[in-house]
Amino acid sequence: MKTLDCLIIGGGFAGLQCAQRLHQAGLAVQVLEARERLGGRTRVAPLAGRTVDIGGQWIGAGHSELTALAQAAGAAIVPQYAEGARLLHLTSGHRDRVKRYRGLIPNANPLALLELDRAIRRLNRDSQSLSLDAPWQAAQASRWDHETLATWKQRHLRTRTGREIFDIAVRSVMTAEPGMLSRLGFLFYCASNNGFEALTSVEGGAQAATVGGGMVQLAEHLAAPLQAEHRVALNADVHRIVRTEHAWRVEDRQQRQWHAHRVVCALPPALQDRISVEPALPADRARLANRMPMGSVIKVVVAYATPFWREAGLSGEAVSHSLPFNTVFDASPREGATGALVGFIDGAPARHWSARPSEERRQAVLDSLVRYFGPQAAEPLDYVEHDWVTDPWSRGCYVGLMTPGLLTELGPALRTPWSGIHWAGTETATEFCGYIEGAIRSGQRAADEVLTALADRRR
Amino acid sequence: MKTLDCLIIGGGFAGLQCAQRLHQAGLAVQVLEARERLGGRTRVAPLAGRTVDIGGQWIGAGHSELTALAQAAGAAIVPQYAEGARLLHLTSGHRDRVKRYRGLIPNANPLALLELDRAIRRLNRDSQSLSLDAPWQAAQASRWDHETLATWKQRHLRTRTGREIFDIAVRSVMTAEPGMLSRLGFLFYCASNNGFEALTSVEGGAQAATVGGGMVQLAEHLAAPLQAEHRVALNADVHRIVRTEHAWRVEDRQQRQWHAHRVVCALPPALQDRISVEPALPADRARLANRMPMGSVIKVVVAYATPFWREAGLSGEAVSHSLPFNTVFDASPREGATGALVGFIDGAPARHWSARPSEERRQAVLDSLVRYFGPQAAEPLDYVEHDWVTDPWSRGCYVGLMTPGLLTELGPALRTPWSGIHWAGTETATEFCGYIEGAIRSGQRAADEVLTALADRRR
Repeated sequence: MKTLDCLIIGGGFAGLQCAQRLHQAGLAVQVLEARERLGGRTRVAPLAGRTVDIGGQWIGAGHSELTALAQAAGAAIVPQYAEGARLLHLTSGHRDRVKRYRGLIPNANPLALLELDRAIRRLNRDSQSLSLDAPWQAAQASRWDHETLATWKQRHLRTRTGREIFDIAVRSVMTAEPGMLSRLGFLFYCASNNGFEALTSVEGGAQAATVGGGMVQLAEHLAAPLQAEHRVALNADVHRIVRTEHAWRVEDRQQRQWHAHRVVCALPPALQDRISVEPALPADRARLANRMPMGSVIKVVVAYATPFWREAGLSGEAVSHSLPFNTVFDASPREGATGALVGFIDGAPARHWSARPSEERRQAVLDSLVRYFGPQAAEPLDYVEHDWVTDPWSRGCYVGLMTPGLLTELGPALRTPWSGIHWAGTETATEFCGYIEGAIRSGQRAADEVLTALADRRR
Repeated sequence: MKTLDCLIIGGGFAGLQCAQRLHQAGLAVQVLEARERLGGRTRVAPLAGRTVDIGGQWIGAGHSELTALAQAAGAAIVPQYAEGARLLHLTSGHRDRVKRYRGLIPNANPLALLELDRAIRRLNRDSQSLSLDAPWQAAQASRWDHETLATWKQRHLRTRTGREIFDIAVRSVMTAEPGMLSRLGFLFYCASNNGFEALTSVEGGAQAATVGGGMVQLAEHLAAPLQAEHRVALNADVHRIVRTEHAWRVEDRQQRQWHAHRVVCALPPALQDRISVEPALPADRARLANRMPMGSVIKVVVAYATPFWREAGLSGEAVSHSLPFNTVFDASPREGATGALVGFIDGAPARHWSARPSEERRQAVLDSLVRYFGPQAAEPLDYVEHDWVTDPWSRGCYVGLMTPGLLTELGPALRTPWSGIHWAGTETATEFCGYIEGAIRSGQRAADEVLTALADRRR
């Protein structure tokens, strides 16, 4: 059997970008994807006659590689609709009221506003002090990494309203609760994504635009030249990587085997852990899997006869501290009269609702939408959802989470190649970690590592 | 192929105890153990002509089931040698000096002593307020679970000496750093094990006695009646559990299959995660694996011509905040002139030293022993070690760790059976969680669940 230059495990944006770059450089590569489709944590579904994103969806400000890819693929980049007021639903203080607001921070009580403003400035100042390549080297790294984000919140936010708004923001960005996250990890995440405000913003932020026809087509565009030469294997559920005398042997559960000089694992650590490596990985790399759990999210898109909220002066953006469907955006088709809302059940509630019957979950989502947008929301044209929590090939979304102690104890293991195995995936990204843009850049970085290593070998 | 009543995955104390109880009750059972030996996280090795424990070793005060098992097996229960002074090596304040002490807390500066005493009383008071069955229901559970133990330490211990001593205790008990542990998780661990002092103590504590000839013989005693009827399969590396029409099919990597009505997973969550379950486990149970990393420890036993430290009035017990070999006990043979010391490289340093060449690691251990006990420690008769961090069938020791948010978000998933699958292992224990005693009790509890479930089915 022929020994390839490089095997790439994972056919998401990181793996495909890496493979494409190596392929263009003339290397013999093969992508091994466990699913029956490409695109990883992006995914499309039919809804009321359209194709909608039910996975990774947004092109954010500064996402230059993803933008270039969309342009190369000839896909339409559609600004996220954001005209009008946003809605905020708080439990505390506001006595279960839905409030309208504009700008980044809702018009809450002045004390909450003041301390939120100060807290965000503090977060940004601390995060700007980090090196994206090695946040674990910051002077305060140990102290920041051994504290949860909840502890930090308790110290810097004293009002219930301030804390609830902060929880909402963290939950929507990380799909997890502040109490399980490292403060240093969150600071790094902010630094990697142009700051706290950008993470939570549409215009100029991480939710700036979408791709007409869905994000997956960009993965398919990346894959096309590889597929034309049969360089992509689907349903290849890799479960074993074994060192041979001169190379690595990679095996899937259907007993297929491939051989290559280099292997790129383009998977989050929590998934990579399902693959046994012989000889064993270094302890730090192996341990990442148990220290970097995936976030929890169920994504839902609901179609309506009209974007009725727009007539009420609403942008469709809504967030809540206590409603199950806790973050919502407009997802109406660009032109045409019908409407759609896209949103998320994030964090711990995602696991709760994941275990409920789908009818009950659908009702909870519609009840949330009625609470935000009124009785018209109870009558959808169509409904589609994807439970990323139980998706066996993602085991959660959006991203592997940085738990306390992870970065300072294991940070260098995220990207350090070992014995011919390289690491890609948005979890390994320095810039735009957690986003498709980070995945792409990580794939480029891993490809460059492989090219350098193989060039050295040939010299 | 015959459908058994119950398959037990894992041949450690939990799995063997469970299987033995079911077997005694007349059920058709089979134990599937991935290793080529039984005993799980216990293990023996030859050292200077003796057999010594290189894994789980101690019978603690209150470990009634383990004591009864030792008695039933006819094994000698040997009190841990503890006569004489202990040694404490601190970095701070004491300027790299080794100090002798007696009692629980070293004779450090008065302020450190005072605040340590107060902190331990506070820990015990809080831990006593917990229900062992449901620590997540405590009034303060959410607050305690969303804070690291390091944050708690920073607040309640102000002196560097106090903090270093606390770190030493936590590291030796949990084989992990306080900065990655949930405060609630640690409180539960204390409550489950008769309090903070008991965890760190020899007499009346968790290190009260050992078993002459090694702990593994007790696992073998448990297994004997099962093995006599070929109810134990070794080298059975289970990787898949599939629901069939009437039962579960369990497959190992050598394509062997077994069928049973019930399955007991007697593994820590981090190992259970390597087994794919179809249909998928509920989200909370699946997620435990990524939220409960194993501790990190390398265990070493060193033999000497004589127990020379005893002549110097030392018990052989030594701890350090900065030396690699950070916790040491006497392990000399009960009778006879030779000596031995057993000890640990715990926590983050274990992963560092795991990656170093064995000669270098051996030297670091001996250098530590010289620092504690003087130049005689440089000339051992024999040396044996086991790196539990990279042991593929343990992936760390002593125990799966409770990270922030774990208990309040996922606690009930630890023990709740699902669709005929039950959970055992010391991580699931309410009493003596983390110890062999906890493993045994968890096996009894899981066996009782299976007996009840099958009896209900027959009625």
